[in-house]
Amino acid sequence: MNSEAQEIVIKPIGTVHSPRVEAIDDNWGSVVSKIQLDPTQFDEQSLWGLLDFSHCEVIYFMHGVSPEQIEKTARHPRNNVNFPKVGIFAQRAKSRPNRIGVSRCRVISVKGLEVTVQSLDAIDGSPVLDIKPYMEEFAPIGDVYQPKWSREIMSQYYQK
Amino acid sequence: MNSEAQEIVIKPIGTVHSPRVEAIDDNWGSVVSKIQLDPTQFDEQSLWGLLDFSHCEVIYFMHGVSPEQIEKTARHPRNNVNFPKVGIFAQRAKSRPNRIGVSRCRVISVKGLEVTVQSLDAIDGSPVLDIKPYMEEFAPIGDVYQPKWSREIMSQYYQK
Repeated sequence: MNSEAQEIVIKPIGTVHSPRVEAIDDNWGSVVSKIQLDPTQFDEQSLWGLLDFSHCEVIYFMHGVSPEQIEKTARHPRNNVNFPKVGIFAQRAKSRPNRIGVSRCRVISVKGLEVTVQSLDAIDGSPVLDIKPYMEEFAPIGDVYQPKWSREIMSQYYQK
Repeated sequence: MNSEAQEIVIKPIGTVHSPRVEAIDDNWGSVVSKIQLDPTQFDEQSLWGLLDFSHCEVIYFMHGVSPEQIEKTARHPRNNVNFPKVGIFAQRAKSRPNRIGVSRCRVISVKGLEVTVQSLDAIDGSPVLDIKPYMEEFAPIGDVYQPKWSREIMSQYYQK
């Protein structure tokens, strides 16, 4: 496998402006932030119709994580030894390969090239890679289950 | 804004092996595919615990889309004039900036560096950028709504 050949270059479509400047694990529920699209690439037509959706998915780059922090094997979620050691692809830790975040958030308003959203768990200055409208048909199909440790971790994540 | 300076280089973590070699709009429900992690970067510890989740989110690169196909403004979804013209960020068309796909799919099995999944809407050979476990707490919070055209488009997408 030629690793060099397959690298992918991504050009951010915009930037997150958030009151949160540091990564904090909890209480994202009432955070209101703005996504500003890059005016050199886009005009307001690119956002036509987004407000007809209650939620969008934001794909962003976790620029606050340094390459040295990236975990490639297994670790205790939140570095808490009370949680089992699980692989980086079985947890949503930010210190992950490629440092890509994906979250659903509420669309509050769209004005020109600016989208105001609620509960986006991206810190201020995060480069945005994509915005997709949320469609219920894309929700998981069939029974959904997850381990107990993940419930504990998430209990206050979106608390207001 | 210095666009050159902010480009982000992504190194795929693995590859999708799917029976589907062409992008087809519908009937992804029964498609079973395998995600093979790159053995030069990862060992099986990176997937520990993933099978305790019913679903994962796969972030992948839609390599079948050429740069010339990318839409940056508004278009009719599926190029069907019966649907309203909406912005590229208000639809999930593959011909989008950065060509990143994000989908939930069922985790069927994990064996070494290989994850078998059901209903992943990525064609054969798609580079995988990340795998995240699906946690219900990350589902949209509050009322969810979406326009009628999106319901029509999705009606057979995950049909088996």
